[in-house]
Amino acid sequence: MKVAVMGYGTVGSGVVEVLEKHAPSIPKKIAGETLEVKRILDLRDFPGDPHQELFTKDFNDILNDDEIRIVAETMGGVNPAFDFTAKLLKAGKSVVSSNKELVAQKGLELLNLAKENGVNYLFEASVGGGIPIIRPLNQCLAANNIEGLAGILNGTTNFILTMMIEKGMPFDEALRLAQDKGYAEKDPTADIEGHDACRKVCILASLAFGKHVYPSQVDTQGISNITLEDVSYVASADGVIKLLGQIKHISDDRIAAFVSPAVVYHGSQLASVNDVFNAILVRGDAVGDVCFYGPGAGKMPTASAVVADVIDCAKHIKRRKYFGWGAGDEDYVVDYKANIKMPFYVRAKASETEAKAKFTTVKFLSRKGQPSDEIAFITDAMTENELTEKLEGMDVINIIKVTDY
Amino acid sequence: MKVAVMGYGTVGSGVVEVLEKHAPSIPKKIAGETLEVKRILDLRDFPGDPHQELFTKDFNDILNDDEIRIVAETMGGVNPAFDFTAKLLKAGKSVVSSNKELVAQKGLELLNLAKENGVNYLFEASVGGGIPIIRPLNQCLAANNIEGLAGILNGTTNFILTMMIEKGMPFDEALRLAQDKGYAEKDPTADIEGHDACRKVCILASLAFGKHVYPSQVDTQGISNITLEDVSYVASADGVIKLLGQIKHISDDRIAAFVSPAVVYHGSQLASVNDVFNAILVRGDAVGDVCFYGPGAGKMPTASAVVADVIDCAKHIKRRKYFGWGAGDEDYVVDYKANIKMPFYVRAKASETEAKAKFTTVKFLSRKGQPSDEIAFITDAMTENELTEKLEGMDVINIIKVTDY
Repeated sequence: MKVAVMGYGTVGSGVVEVLEKHAPSIPKKIAGETLEVKRILDLRDFPGDPHQELFTKDFNDILNDDEIRIVAETMGGVNPAFDFTAKLLKAGKSVVSSNKELVAQKGLELLNLAKENGVNYLFEASVGGGIPIIRPLNQCLAANNIEGLAGILNGTTNFILTMMIEKGMPFDEALRLAQDKGYAEKDPTADIEGHDACRKVCILASLAFGKHVYPSQVDTQGISNITLEDVSYVASADGVIKLLGQIKHISDDRIAAFVSPAVVYHGSQLASVNDVFNAILVRGDAVGDVCFYGPGAGKMPTASAVVADVIDCAKHIKRRKYFGWGAGDEDYVVDYKANIKMPFYVRAKASETEAKAKFTTVKFLSRKGQPSDEIAFITDAMTENELTEKLEGMDVINIIKVTDY
Repeated sequence: MKVAVMGYGTVGSGVVEVLEKHAPSIPKKIAGETLEVKRILDLRDFPGDPHQELFTKDFNDILNDDEIRIVAETMGGVNPAFDFTAKLLKAGKSVVSSNKELVAQKGLELLNLAKENGVNYLFEASVGGGIPIIRPLNQCLAANNIEGLAGILNGTTNFILTMMIEKGMPFDEALRLAQDKGYAEKDPTADIEGHDACRKVCILASLAFGKHVYPSQVDTQGISNITLEDVSYVASADGVIKLLGQIKHISDDRIAAFVSPAVVYHGSQLASVNDVFNAILVRGDAVGDVCFYGPGAGKMPTASAVVADVIDCAKHIKRRKYFGWGAGDEDYVVDYKANIKMPFYVRAKASETEAKAKFTTVKFLSRKGQPSDEIAFITDAMTENELTEKLEGMDVINIIKVTDY
């Protein structure tokens, strides 16, 4: 069976490499079929690359080639990936994608197009890189009503936080180290401000609860205001600060979804997820908590997830997989600030007496070198709106959610 | 679609409960079909149970009922479960199972029967209870050559070891507590001596590498010789002792598989798996390490995995899923003692000088109250046969493998 790859960057070149390396073992998995890369689309030149005869700059070379049945889209970005993918699905080709931005923005439309045309649109690699999560959510946990999910979904920010927690490295220095190691982009905004994690939350929420969630519906906060002082206070409460995507089921018509730094206590499986690793915890009504851990990015892990989808498409070439989600209404994602109760970490220029006057129970934290006019504490569970009201008049330095995952 | 349940014990009654509870949401997952329990097979009476009209003591009531298309086998044990399952598959019914003993002993025969008869035999619940592992291994990691697996596969022994490590509770006391809590049987042999973990290793190895591995091929050691002294020495090296099932790929024709206590260093995802939880770490050539964590047993988690398989059968009622493994030859599982190099923990009545004379590099450990004539150390990587030879003449108290997972 002939395959094309669109986008010959890190992941795309990995896909070609995995397909070539595994060529001998793949036929065992798809009833004797082989998988062969016939075309690679990229506008750039790759002098010296051994695949010269496969490269094309013209999308139509793939679209109009009837031999090509499966296309791996590893271009990233919404355009032109959306246009290309839509045309391929309409032409009766299955498409697999690692493009979280596209799936988060246009998943509903593309899944519908796949359905109408009797082909598959799969995107295991779009969340958690090499970690199997899309398929387990869809199939293995089918007998559960999902109560919620929480994930460490961005490797770059997890690396930075790990350096802050384990080495006492300030945020800026940790960011520079992440850039030096190639984990963070020159412009790190998408990672640092939580936009990348937000896209993955959209995909997980859409899949877990069956209605499309768009990035604009997910309240998103990054990690740039986390300091070593916060890390230190939280450590005294036997916790760590992680950038979490959290999704909570409220009713069949309502969910909450948000991305933010969060205090995770040791004992949670998420607390020991370090460096660039990712993990996704799923809470089901029957199974309880299950957790999926692994490399959340990187050339070969992500490529192997793309190729697993290619293999799955090849297995199911004559039939569609049940898979997809519908449209949500405008109120589908509620304002978590008014609806979700949780404890909060608060750091402020204030006295313990002031805090006690505002909250019925507070747990005070401490750190080395704590100034006498600074306090930090964990509140009882309440909504963020209630918290904001209670904190009125207090000189607050930072607020961090405390997760129950 | 009509379903039958064989065996109304903990898991079987959970399966009926999950099917009933999820009845409203299941049709969304299988193109509008409902799933209804028509028969429950058990030789016992269940006075007061609301399913009286469904109970039967006669297997033929299920076998000969053409309306029943899917059967959940939650009886446990090889007989009569094997006989019943074989007859059902031959009669064109799909069977799903939580019975690890049966799958480990007879998986090859039953998968072949399913294939011959165009039906499915699924067993997600047989390993790791509610943790999705069978399907991710089979599908999501399809683009990887699996290099090895390691798992904490038995909740009872993990609970006992956790009590020893965290509470300093001696083995016997921890076992009694596990029995009081209902985690361990009155006769705890199958758990304590590693037989249960061994069956799960067989299933994982068969699936990961495509050839059936039988319990008799897996060298199995339990945890009954682990003492608080060992726990304490290992803690000084920043490690914990876990009962691990380990599988290593050697070549396309050879693997190693063994169950034993093992030293796991902090930093491994397996080190933080506590109490009755299970985890399975899979090492792929492309993805690296991925880890699946969750409740390894218990009524509802296991039942939810069985029902997920029932749902999958219902989705695929008219076609078989690619799934299965072939026969291995006699030499397929090699003697790990001669073939696998690893470091070992050794405790002995000896002097450091004696140890240094036998090993080029050793890392000495310490514990509170360590007698002056006792040493404990970690060796370099070597085979167990080499270790045994080197240790000749030394008064050894205990030896524990050190894992690289």
